[in-house]
Amino acid sequence: MPLHLQVPPPTDPAYRRSPSPPPSPSRALQTYCDKYVVVYDFSDIDYDAATKEFITLLQNLEATGLHVEVRPGYEQTILLFVKAPSELLGNRVYKLRVRDWLYGITQTRPPGNKDTIVSAWYEAEDILSMDHLVSWPKSMGGAGITPGHGQWKNVKSIFPMHNEKVNQAFLRRLSKKLLLGTDDLDKIRDLFGSKVAFYFAFGQSYSAFLLFPAITGLIAWLWLPNYSLAYAILTVIWCTVFLEYWKVREVDLSIRWKVRGVSKTKMNRPEYKYEQVIVDQYGRTIHYTPKWKQISRQLLQVPFMAISTVALGLMISSVFAVEILISDSYDGPNNFYLEYIPTVLLAVLIPYISSYLEGVAKWLTNFENHRTADNFEMSLTQKIFVLSIITNYLPILLTAFVYVPFGNQIFPWLEGHIVQFAPSIGNRLTELPFRLDADRLRHEVITLTVTGQLSSFFEENILPLIKHKMSGWYREYRRAYTKDTILISMVTDDDDEAKFLEQRRNEATLEPYNVQDDIAELVLQFGYLALFSPAWPLIPLGFLINNWVELRSDFAKICIEHQRPAPYRAEGIGPWIASLEVLVWLGSISSAAIVHLFSSDSMLGGGWSTLPLTIFVSEHILLAITTITRVIFLRFGSEQLRRERSEQYARRLAILEEIEEHKREGEHIDVRERQRRRSLLVSGNESFWTKQVEEGASVAAGVKLIQLARKWEESKDLKKKQ
Amino acid sequence: MPLHLQVPPPTDPAYRRSPSPPPSPSRALQTYCDKYVVVYDFSDIDYDAATKEFITLLQNLEATGLHVEVRPGYEQTILLFVKAPSELLGNRVYKLRVRDWLYGITQTRPPGNKDTIVSAWYEAEDILSMDHLVSWPKSMGGAGITPGHGQWKNVKSIFPMHNEKVNQAFLRRLSKKLLLGTDDLDKIRDLFGSKVAFYFAFGQSYSAFLLFPAITGLIAWLWLPNYSLAYAILTVIWCTVFLEYWKVREVDLSIRWKVRGVSKTKMNRPEYKYEQVIVDQYGRTIHYTPKWKQISRQLLQVPFMAISTVALGLMISSVFAVEILISDSYDGPNNFYLEYIPTVLLAVLIPYISSYLEGVAKWLTNFENHRTADNFEMSLTQKIFVLSIITNYLPILLTAFVYVPFGNQIFPWLEGHIVQFAPSIGNRLTELPFRLDADRLRHEVITLTVTGQLSSFFEENILPLIKHKMSGWYREYRRAYTKDTILISMVTDDDDEAKFLEQRRNEATLEPYNVQDDIAELVLQFGYLALFSPAWPLIPLGFLINNWVELRSDFAKICIEHQRPAPYRAEGIGPWIASLEVLVWLGSISSAAIVHLFSSDSMLGGGWSTLPLTIFVSEHILLAITTITRVIFLRFGSEQLRRERSEQYARRLAILEEIEEHKREGEHIDVRERQRRRSLLVSGNESFWTKQVEEGASVAAGVKLIQLARKWEESKDLKKKQ
Repeated sequence: MPLHLQVPPPTDPAYRRSPSPPPSPSRALQTYCDKYVVVYDFSDIDYDAATKEFITLLQNLEATGLHVEVRPGYEQTILLFVKAPSELLGNRVYKLRVRDWLYGITQTRPPGNKDTIVSAWYEAEDILSMDHLVSWPKSMGGAGITPGHGQWKNVKSIFPMHNEKVNQAFLRRLSKKLLLGTDDLDKIRDLFGSKVAFYFAFGQSYSAFLLFPAITGLIAWLWLPNYSLAYAILTVIWCTVFLEYWKVREVDLSIRWKVRGVSKTKMNRPEYKYEQVIVDQYGRTIHYTPKWKQISRQLLQVPFMAISTVALGLMISSVFAVEILISDSYDGPNNFYLEYIPTVLLAVLIPYISSYLEGVAKWLTNFENHRTADNFEMSLTQKIFVLSIITNYLPILLTAFVYVPFGNQIFPWLEGHIVQFAPSIGNRLTELPFRLDADRLRHEVITLTVTGQLSSFFEENILPLIKHKMSGWYREYRRAYTKDTILISMVTDDDDEAKFLEQRRNEATLEPYNVQDDIAELVLQFGYLALFSPAWPLIPLGFLINNWVELRSDFAKICIEHQRPAPYRAEGIGPWIASLEVLVWLGSISSAAIVHLFSSDSMLGGGWSTLPLTIFVSEHILLAITTITRVIFLRFGSEQLRRERSEQYARRLAILEEIEEHKREGEHIDVRERQRRRSLLVSGNESFWTKQVEEGASVAAGVKLIQLARKWEESKDLKKKQ
Repeated sequence: MPLHLQVPPPTDPAYRRSPSPPPSPSRALQTYCDKYVVVYDFSDIDYDAATKEFITLLQNLEATGLHVEVRPGYEQTILLFVKAPSELLGNRVYKLRVRDWLYGITQTRPPGNKDTIVSAWYEAEDILSMDHLVSWPKSMGGAGITPGHGQWKNVKSIFPMHNEKVNQAFLRRLSKKLLLGTDDLDKIRDLFGSKVAFYFAFGQSYSAFLLFPAITGLIAWLWLPNYSLAYAILTVIWCTVFLEYWKVREVDLSIRWKVRGVSKTKMNRPEYKYEQVIVDQYGRTIHYTPKWKQISRQLLQVPFMAISTVALGLMISSVFAVEILISDSYDGPNNFYLEYIPTVLLAVLIPYISSYLEGVAKWLTNFENHRTADNFEMSLTQKIFVLSIITNYLPILLTAFVYVPFGNQIFPWLEGHIVQFAPSIGNRLTELPFRLDADRLRHEVITLTVTGQLSSFFEENILPLIKHKMSGWYREYRRAYTKDTILISMVTDDDDEAKFLEQRRNEATLEPYNVQDDIAELVLQFGYLALFSPAWPLIPLGFLINNWVELRSDFAKICIEHQRPAPYRAEGIGPWIASLEVLVWLGSISSAAIVHLFSSDSMLGGGWSTLPLTIFVSEHILLAITTITRVIFLRFGSEQLRRERSEQYARRLAILEEIEEHKREGEHIDVRERQRRRSLLVSGNESFWTKQVEEGASVAAGVKLIQLARKWEESKDLKKKQ
């Protein structure tokens, strides 16, 4: 007998202002929270196999208790619209809450039994359970649909549907606000889950903090000398303060969203290979792989990274060298075009090499055999991040620490060698003496940051839109003129469904959203700031403006250019914290070195011999500041953490009221006195403890001792007088 | 109606092999767990006031339900033997367990009500409750006796009694064992509480780890060149591996001993000053002081440390300079004696200056207004530790980085100045040319480590024993010959009590034990190893032998030379971890510098210009190793932590068995089918979802689509053939 329990949402600001009212058991007219789309593509197999596979797919879904409506999709795809009955979904939501409690994520046990049905507190909570119903293995009560993998490699994707009205309303709201508040972040969590919400939270905190270096940077640009020491120090301190702040903020939010420790509960990836299945004494099934095997496999990324770094480094360095040779000392024919050839070559080659390296990284990450999808995704993104760090920062590092200080030695030497081996080109090169461009560092930084931000904005927001629109037009074009390549041309949609189906077919062709890419972009930007901002103090101002637009356009991007992400949960931005820490560290070295080498201050303008000392001092000052900041932030601590502890205390205290009652003084004295006597009789064997049992005997004994001492003193005084 | 609950000790190895069987409710003939001694000293006030104060003291103790036997002590002291009735103590033990659960230290609620009485799992648990009964404020159910403070400034001390038999048995056991096992540590915890046990655990782990550098050190000493690079690298790696191991081990033990998070539950120090008393919404009373006030007060230690460092540094440097001047270049009369004058002077002065600085440190720590006694004690010990670091390491640092490299410039220059200002001495000095003693670093290290360990052993173990015996003899002497200065000469002990009372009077004159001093000594030793071991690779071997003796003698020291410590709880060695981390770090710098400057290897024997680079490289290698070690240790993780989590899981699962039952596949399909239909009817407004309601309709729709695609392809093929 299903028991319907209306659990009120906890009295928590994170739930109080939920954008959509919690759906009532009878569900609203148009709900998005209890539906999922499965895209089945039969273009790769023959029709009989497809029919069989499709029937199995449908049986799996229906056996889980889900209802399926089938409609044709674009090309040779079938869209399965999956809907969960409210009883089933409400029960899954309840069980997920119980599971969270079981793993210690939440501290209070949700009341209920196996048939309890609850309403979700927010849309993403329902959708997460919907996702579990479709994708979790059968043994856990799901349909076991793993798109693109194993039995279901013809299932192209599974995704929830975009809630357009709420998306639109939230976009309008965002455009009116200067800053995202915590309630806005709550709303993003309500729509897309905490993993995506953490990206916005990080971006928001980071952008708000950017205000400080933007202002100091403007001041430095207007009034301070180039490569200002004061500005460099302020920026490094700012970096570490921001990072320590964010760590506390992350914990705060993870408690607010009840996801602290959620990584422990994650399911195995279907690709995860284990050696043994162990059922431990507590009844948990553990898919066991020896730790040392995983660790040693993960150590493989060290040589991979080393080789990639060297390969990318060599390529970039040589292109860099050729470019400089041509621009600074070649004056032959076509020098204007020649100057750009290596750069264009690099621009063409890098994507190929990067994508090759990314392929290797993907293979390697797969080989590392991560247990959870989160770990896999994170490990892959981190590898790609390191590669992009190299391609992005290396030109600047080469300019700062090779070209400017050593260019005068290296390039004439290089020209000499070229004359030897290829006199025709070499002579052209040496026609003009080598001219070192001392401002090249600044130009390099400006070019890379400004064009980088602009082009990534274009690549991320404009290009996919154009591509998507183009392929849509092309599809429509083919449909209109050939009327045969697509399934939907053979079936007419019902009028009342046409608009709905068009939207879903469109979503089915979109890419899934990977939040890690967006975080990586912000972290890369933070790195520019930490490492190179003394070269051009306007960097943070540019970033501030960029991010203001970016955060909003990213929300629009998710809504328009991507499938709605499954609202997975995360307890923060994970290992990106470590990346940020490394960048701050490198920043303290790089900033110090740039100021040391380039600053015109007489005090500092040191040569190479004193550079290690400068770096050493700067690095250790940073470490000291980091330690102090951390201690202070820890002392102030996380508000939510304190609240959580207090709530646990209060909860337990309520159970205990009868035990911890405060006794009024003297009240129980008689009872105690009786207890005392009795206990003395019981332990009567120890005669020592029975000598002063009588009421007042102890006092009398003590007073007697003091009197004895007094008497002795009086008698001594008397003797003296006599 | 008191309810006596025999809670079995948890099935945990930490409790299974408890040395003393849990006392039965009727208590053994001679128990130590339910008694406490209060020493009242009335030598400072007049007899009437003393009488009044004594009566109040007794009333307070008896009002708490404790029984007191009064006996005379040495000189003008009265010993109050306090005993708790078993009902009272058992209830306090129960309430302490409830309190631990309330604050989240343990996860299971102890069953019972306000009158529940339990037996302690081990002796220290009882004694801790005994301590609370005597010293906690009245509002918390104690007698509020705070020795030496406020109303009770004439109460000299309160302490539990030593359990001689168990002490002796454990000492015998220790002398037979090569290494302390975890069960031995459990026994120390059972006797003296976890705070003391953590010292022994740390000492044990550290000593066991010492075996590795002892062996490599012996090899280096026998076969490797002086100041060997290989040995230095191994030692630095060893340091960081040990530290990371200990961090995990500490967590392990804190869970084993159920003290994880115990610092949260600590009471306010009686000296703690607060601005406001707030009763928060959860019913907790908070004694509030603004965080910024505490932090800013604590920042005062920065100037204090700076000034102390400079003062001590100047003093040590000048003595050092004079000593070298005389030993290396003075050849006048009495040079043998003169050489030792500055050292003797320093040896005489340092204790005075140190004790003055310690006085300032104490005042400062008091001013910092720490809430708990633990924090106060820790803050004070850390200050004193920094001072002792300076006095201990500075001579070696001066030798290594000033005397050896620059001695040839500094000392002739110094001599020249002395000739100018004091020709008579100066001429004597310059009689002999300055001879640099290149082996001085090695000698300095040997002298300081060997004599340091020996003298500290003597100071710690032999000297107090002699002092204590001497004062005992003197007291007996006075008693025998003058028969008047002491109270006990006027009261004769009962025969059956004489031996017992002698032992307790002796304990009353002993010093309390401060475990932080002993930890500080080990940390200081670790510092020698981390910073200077390349100078003399036999250091770790010496330390290994020393520690083997030390750990045993320390246990004996607590038993013989100190009052039994109140069995306070701690969750580890606290901020000493941070001190160790700093020392490892400094070690990577100092070791690298010593090898760089002193090594005879041609590859390294570098001058000053390349030193910062060497340091930079060495430091960053260490950091990389630390990071990798930490990641690996974290991956393997704490066994106890995993166990705790599993137990929480199992506990919650047991409550939940009925919810998480695994459904057999297909079993509930009919129920679900009915649910599905019903839900569809309910949400019937969405016509899209009702089109394929009938059994098999969805499958048919999908199969039809695939067939359509097949037909279309077939017709296309047909067209082609035609």
